Amino acid sequence: MQPQSNVLEVGKKLVDYCKRNQPLKAVDELYSEQIESQEAMETPGMPANVRGLEAIRKKNKQWEETMEVHSSQVDGPFPLGDRFAVHFKYDTTDKKTNQRWQMEEVGLYTVKDGKIIKEEFFYTM
Amino acid sequence: MQPQSNVLEVGKKLVDYCKRNQPLKAVDELYSEQIESQEAMETPGMPANVRGLEAIRKKNKQWEETMEVHSSQVDGPFPLGDRFAVHFKYDTTDKKTNQRWQMEEVGLYTVKDGKIIKEEFFYTM
Repeated sequence: MQPQSNVLEVGKKLVDYCKRNQPLKAVDELYSEQIESQEAMETPGMPANVRGLEAIRKKNKQWEETMEVHSSQVDGPFPLGDRFAVHFKYDTTDKKTNQRWQMEEVGLYTVKDGKIIKEEFFYTM
Repeated sequence: MQPQSNVLEVGKKLVDYCKRNQPLKAVDELYSEQIESQEAMETPGMPANVRGLEAIRKKNKQWEETMEVHSSQVDGPFPLGDRFAVHFKYDTTDKKTNQRWQMEEVGLYTVKDGKIIKEEFFYTM
């Protein structure tokens, strides 16, 4: 199961957008209409599983509005077959509570026909 | 889909064994008889997909015999449902060719009944 070439291409573009803190541009360019997004846990006002581009955009806007990102480290993409993984570290502050968070997670992305159809986020809190 | 508590437990034990460079102890304690191991790519003498404890032990012995590990960084475990991810960085030398390798990959592990039934390794070369 060699990685498909477009999986690596899509992964590199996603990592570039994440490094530039432009997740909404990644959604516009790289995500499928049928996108499914799965979080390890649900949070207040956000279910663990959402589907569709509008739900993903809402989720990313909520992240941008809620969290101030002081610095980030984005490692990857690491491909296998039709999927790729990315390792994220964020140093953030929750704008509402002023609480500082060091967040770390792995994102696992599934690609079909050159578009991301599933994203899954692995972490503890 | 909250992470199952034994998934996190198994993940922590696996990360401990990896940090101590004792992968064969991890196999003995944490792996199912039905283990399936999937690499992003096949390498000389090693197919991309192998099954069963004996094949996994052979693979780990081959790694130990082939690679000298100068230092490693193991981040995780990051759980989601019945799976957890681990981010690995290794500074190694291939003992046969004397070539130095900086390797980086994400391992994705699936747990069933307290045992690892699948490991998948995401990387490029």
